[in-house]
Amino acid sequence: MIRIYGMSQSGNCYKLQLLMSLLRKDYEWCEVDVLNGACQTEEFLAKNSAGKVPLLQLDDGSYLPESNAALFYLAQNTQYWPEDPLHQAKVLQWMFFEQYSHEPFIAVARFIKVFLTKTDPRHSELPKLYEKGYKALEVMEQHLSNRNWFVGDSPTIADIALFAYTHVAEDGGFKLSQYRNIQLWLERIKKLDHFMAMKK
Amino acid sequence: MIRIYGMSQSGNCYKLQLLMSLLRKDYEWCEVDVLNGACQTEEFLAKNSAGKVPLLQLDDGSYLPESNAALFYLAQNTQYWPEDPLHQAKVLQWMFFEQYSHEPFIAVARFIKVFLTKTDPRHSELPKLYEKGYKALEVMEQHLSNRNWFVGDSPTIADIALFAYTHVAEDGGFKLSQYRNIQLWLERIKKLDHFMAMKK
Repeated sequence: MIRIYGMSQSGNCYKLQLLMSLLRKDYEWCEVDVLNGACQTEEFLAKNSAGKVPLLQLDDGSYLPESNAALFYLAQNTQYWPEDPLHQAKVLQWMFFEQYSHEPFIAVARFIKVFLTKTDPRHSELPKLYEKGYKALEVMEQHLSNRNWFVGDSPTIADIALFAYTHVAEDGGFKLSQYRNIQLWLERIKKLDHFMAMKK
Repeated sequence: MIRIYGMSQSGNCYKLQLLMSLLRKDYEWCEVDVLNGACQTEEFLAKNSAGKVPLLQLDDGSYLPESNAALFYLAQNTQYWPEDPLHQAKVLQWMFFEQYSHEPFIAVARFIKVFLTKTDPRHSELPKLYEKGYKALEVMEQHLSNRNWFVGDSPTIADIALFAYTHVAEDGGFKLSQYRNIQLWLERIKKLDHFMAMKK
């Protein structure tokens, strides 16, 4: 059975839980105490030298890091990975957008506001994170102006990847009220059969 | 014919040129004067609302942004995209690593050192960029300790994606001399048939 090493409150880890729930697939969950350095132990680094979760352990014992690569692997031969190569490329386009232009700002602002103390010097990063995070939200809002899902006519792993940190962006201090298309899209995902909420 | 909008000195754009050269495929190149704001014009934003290059224009006129999604699309049905789903996922793993843990530090240091004036305040970012960039190089060096290519027994688009900014990392002030495995891997890529050097 697939094993997922992850931290429940991490959006990158939640992506995999959400996909597995939507697909009604079983897996073994191994909670990793990231905030107390459990990703930097010799034992964990032997599994993933990048020292990060989520980390997929496959049936043959091998490991697959990177949340969006794991989503790709788990979605093979399911409705969440389209068949057309151009649609596939567009799904990856939005997943690379998520990791480069969205997560480093929207997830990191949430990390600072939720997991660090109020006096932590990293709070000084917030203005820059808001500037870049809002830019990502603008791109999403515009893209969703004439479609229900990021690629094609049904949800894909692009929607799952982008949902993870967008739906908790307000934890990091972002205001979503002006993004009507994003809000409707978030609701669409929450109404999918077998949707699973993120653990708080 | 495929059209590529790009900036010749950009590693993200060079990735696509290198793959097309290795595959001996023709394409139309449209140089975009990014440094003078040509990505932020109304005309360009209508093509790619994220305002970035490279941008692929396909035969049907549609656009595909994100360098690594474009690599995926162009490599379909070639030796640079493996057939096995787990190998495919591992190729994507390294391409997400490249965009999240490598490019934002190694490419950005090069941008600051090569394209900005010596008095630009962004030079203050360099110590942090070196810290994180060297971490990425360590992960690569370790991974290459017992293999010639990032995934499987032959070069894939994971190697091309990582080659782009690694081979010019010294432009940004990184020292590669201590990374023997990385140096051998860079030489291996430069020796591929129909290799094309990056324009300086």
